[in-house]
Amino acid sequence: MPDLPTVVTTIADLRAAVAAARAAGRVIGLVPTMGALHEGHAELVRAAARVSGFVVVSVFVNPTQFGPAEDFAKYPRTLDADRAICGAAGAHLVFAPPVEEVYPPGAVTFVEVPKLDASLCGPSRPGHFRGVCTVVLKLFNMALPDVAVFGQKDAQQARIIRQMVRDLNVPVDVRIEPTVREADGLAMSSRNRYLSPADRALASGIYRALRAVRDRALAGEWDVARLESALRADLVAIPGARIDYASIVDDDTLQPIARLDRPALAAVAVFLGTTRLIDNVTIP
Amino acid sequence: MPDLPTVVTTIADLRAAVAAARAAGRVIGLVPTMGALHEGHAELVRAAARVSGFVVVSVFVNPTQFGPAEDFAKYPRTLDADRAICGAAGAHLVFAPPVEEVYPPGAVTFVEVPKLDASLCGPSRPGHFRGVCTVVLKLFNMALPDVAVFGQKDAQQARIIRQMVRDLNVPVDVRIEPTVREADGLAMSSRNRYLSPADRALASGIYRALRAVRDRALAGEWDVARLESALRADLVAIPGARIDYASIVDDDTLQPIARLDRPALAAVAVFLGTTRLIDNVTIP
Repeated sequence: MPDLPTVVTTIADLRAAVAAARAAGRVIGLVPTMGALHEGHAELVRAAARVSGFVVVSVFVNPTQFGPAEDFAKYPRTLDADRAICGAAGAHLVFAPPVEEVYPPGAVTFVEVPKLDASLCGPSRPGHFRGVCTVVLKLFNMALPDVAVFGQKDAQQARIIRQMVRDLNVPVDVRIEPTVREADGLAMSSRNRYLSPADRALASGIYRALRAVRDRALAGEWDVARLESALRADLVAIPGARIDYASIVDDDTLQPIARLDRPALAAVAVFLGTTRLIDNVTIP
Repeated sequence: MPDLPTVVTTIADLRAAVAAARAAGRVIGLVPTMGALHEGHAELVRAAARVSGFVVVSVFVNPTQFGPAEDFAKYPRTLDADRAICGAAGAHLVFAPPVEEVYPPGAVTFVEVPKLDASLCGPSRPGHFRGVCTVVLKLFNMALPDVAVFGQKDAQQARIIRQMVRDLNVPVDVRIEPTVREADGLAMSSRNRYLSPADRALASGIYRALRAVRDRALAGEWDVARLESALRADLVAIPGARIDYASIVDDDTLQPIARLDRPALAAVAVFLGTTRLIDNVTIP
């Protein structure tokens, strides 16, 4: 039974713990999360532990990345369970600040990565990636990690954070880890717990549709319009599913492409009931 | 005769020099400039040298803070003279990167500090402070200083950078140094060299007008509308002067105020010929 990691709630305590670890010669790893941790997060923590000697997991439900009609208030908060998962996966410190520690009164500054936020989740979640970039840069500046680990499940987020880090010369090595899936293929997500049992069973159809479109592409279909049609057809065949988007884009720029003449990303957002699920596969 | 500081032009060389200085236990100071250095900049370098053991001066004419009709192309570039001034004032390293080192192709990310950029220079220089914030954050991430020094002459810039640093948790101690003036009171500026001899002689009227309004306020006039009228009257009395703005604002928020019931900033931008000069005084 591993020790439970220490939980700190202030930036000062976080910085003191990180400074002590760095003074002891340890590489600092950061895994930013919104809590409600699952095996996907545990993999990110293990990945961070492989390349750093002191792993910080931040657990912060970031209000600025939720739209007014989104699930900020009801987003699951499970700190005790999160702490146990962090400990088992090899984390050394959990940073779980209250909102006012991260956003004191009067804060107005934000970071924006235009173009990359214009496709996929961007149009249906205005302000989301601005909120993500701002809080991630803040967490980087609070924890001062050498390495930070994110998941490919949030492919657009990962791509945008990489771009921000490059454009702003942030001295952090950003690593993206593969999506972790349930036995039936559903991408692990904190929001899966919102699903009714019936919808949970149907949700595996999302990844089946993504695999099917990748197989079609690898079999020689390079026309993106035809591939997207097939993807949408497979998704709407899931009873009760409502497509937010189902797109195949340039894996680097996230811009629309007409033919698969470069590495691509097939990415979808699908509502099952009121729960919005996202998933993606890369097409090499 | 002090040694001339080393000039580096790449981020890698900058980081290596800073890392070596830090490993030797030295505090790192940064003075971000656009070059064309004068005694005002020299004071910033001396201020940095008083609180740090390794002073970096960046010399970079930042294209993203110039508007399309502004003086980016003709902004003075005087690196040899700048280097001598840096050495005499106690700098250890000059970072003078080419534009493509700072903005490689494809860079899109920016930092914005709304509200504070809505007054004074903001309306007449759209995008200016976005460019300033973005490049300053980049320079901070490149040089990783402990302390950075800016001048009060650019009061709005100083206020915005302080806000950005606070809001984004940037681990840099920002210090603001008083404006350095010529014998006749004109605030030192790289743009003063654009002035014709006649306009140069008239330019001292700007600071006289600012001192007069401060004196009026200290003598008991607290009505901001009346103070601004007097300030404008003094400025338009300068032959050929064209006022861009002449405002008295809250020294903290830079928002308009009706009465001097809190610390205020009297700030002006005035064209003499085609040269735009800014200056300010605080009213305690």
